[in-house]
Amino acid sequence: MLIIGEKLNGTLKKTAAAIASRDVEFVQDLARKQVEAGANYLDVNAGTGSGKEAEDLVWLIETAQAAVDVPLCLDSANPIALKSGMECVKQTPMVNSISGEANRLDGILPLVAERGSPVIALLLDDHGIPDNLEGRLKIASHILERARQAGVPDGKIYVDPLAMAISTRTEGALVALETMRILRAENPDVKFSIGLSNISFGLPARTLINQAFLAQLLAAGLDAAIINPMEQGLINMLYATEMILGRDRFCRNYTTAFRKGKIKLDSAA
Amino acid sequence: MLIIGEKLNGTLKKTAAAIASRDVEFVQDLARKQVEAGANYLDVNAGTGSGKEAEDLVWLIETAQAAVDVPLCLDSANPIALKSGMECVKQTPMVNSISGEANRLDGILPLVAERGSPVIALLLDDHGIPDNLEGRLKIASHILERARQAGVPDGKIYVDPLAMAISTRTEGALVALETMRILRAENPDVKFSIGLSNISFGLPARTLINQAFLAQLLAAGLDAAIINPMEQGLINMLYATEMILGRDRFCRNYTTAFRKGKIKLDSAA
Repeated sequence: MLIIGEKLNGTLKKTAAAIASRDVEFVQDLARKQVEAGANYLDVNAGTGSGKEAEDLVWLIETAQAAVDVPLCLDSANPIALKSGMECVKQTPMVNSISGEANRLDGILPLVAERGSPVIALLLDDHGIPDNLEGRLKIASHILERARQAGVPDGKIYVDPLAMAISTRTEGALVALETMRILRAENPDVKFSIGLSNISFGLPARTLINQAFLAQLLAAGLDAAIINPMEQGLINMLYATEMILGRDRFCRNYTTAFRKGKIKLDSAA
Repeated sequence: MLIIGEKLNGTLKKTAAAIASRDVEFVQDLARKQVEAGANYLDVNAGTGSGKEAEDLVWLIETAQAAVDVPLCLDSANPIALKSGMECVKQTPMVNSISGEANRLDGILPLVAERGSPVIALLLDDHGIPDNLEGRLKIASHILERARQAGVPDGKIYVDPLAMAISTRTEGALVALETMRILRAENPDVKFSIGLSNISFGLPARTLINQAFLAQLLAAGLDAAIINPMEQGLINMLYATEMILGRDRFCRNYTTAFRKGKIKLDSAA
């Protein structure tokens, strides 16, 4: 599973302050820590508050990629900012995100198609997030149809089934899991990603809940997740679950990770 | 899920010594601790080394049930010991276990039928543990057929699909999970139990692996597990996974367990 590190995000207070003050050390430190903790991509979101998102995003990208060698995941709903970002990345970036919203499909699909970027697709549209399975599947069909028309193959689409906070909806995780299972059966090339931590919003011992959700998502075929890779319990659960699911021949990844200290028990949930 | 506490087991060195020396305090302390940690049943196994299993089992039962109020799970392959045990239990016990072995079916099914006891059924027979799915399903069919003939309904059978240590077989967990899924679809009344910890034999950070396996088993419909209920990470994962699977309306069980200190993070994997 691809780990997309979530911390370089201008909607987080500290990262927003670092972007505003052009704090190179803060950004590069956070970039390095996430990669050391196992991130395969780093999400970069410059926030929308400054009124100069494109400029901020370019600074954030250049600062991050001067410190680490992983590709970036350009996180914006703004085609102009994304276009500027795409022009300065060293490696093909992932894009976060399109959705069923008309302006995102119109503005972002051409950029993604031109660059050959993988793109995260949120199952919401101009009417919001559908509460039920049917509504999400309908949006997914629409997005996939539009993507194909734009020349973006299914294999570049990472559908995020959108997990609602389980504190507000008992079936929040189940709806996301079932959406994934059905879409995957119908569209074998489509990939799946999720913003994991929303599930546990408002509840205590959040890492424990995130772990339990991750275990079920992996079984359902999750390909990527936007997480805080320093949340050690998630890394632990990722290695253990891949092994349980028969994806770790002779337990080599698990035992190597344990020996190298990538699996750590003290700070885990 | 029913938690069957595994610690009063004469194949464990300390418990064996306590049985041999009739150490009432040791046994009652271990009984109380398991019930406080959440055990719904206590497994009682007097060991087979002393040559007087029936007498030892009766002592163990009487000692345990003088301390706690939960029903017991009589753990023996010996019909004579089981019969003695059944005569002194206060509440209908579970029996651990039958299997496809002829002598167990012949000797234990009549006792179980007479008492109306739930019984754990291991998917092995006189030829050992089948390596593959087909062999296990065949044994399951045979056991269920014999049980029905003896007047034991499907709903009293807790099939243990037998997880092999994943360190010796990459697909050890998958075979058990798939066995459960198929049997459950074909026999909707049959229940499932598992001796959980064998999966992680020989590997480091065992609780983490046991947690990951428990998460998948619960999704596959596990009804009971023989565990050490003081292995806090398992209790944590049980509450979190039941919630993720939509079985905890308004998150009430989870939040109550957290508030009462039943979910604890420090000692968890």
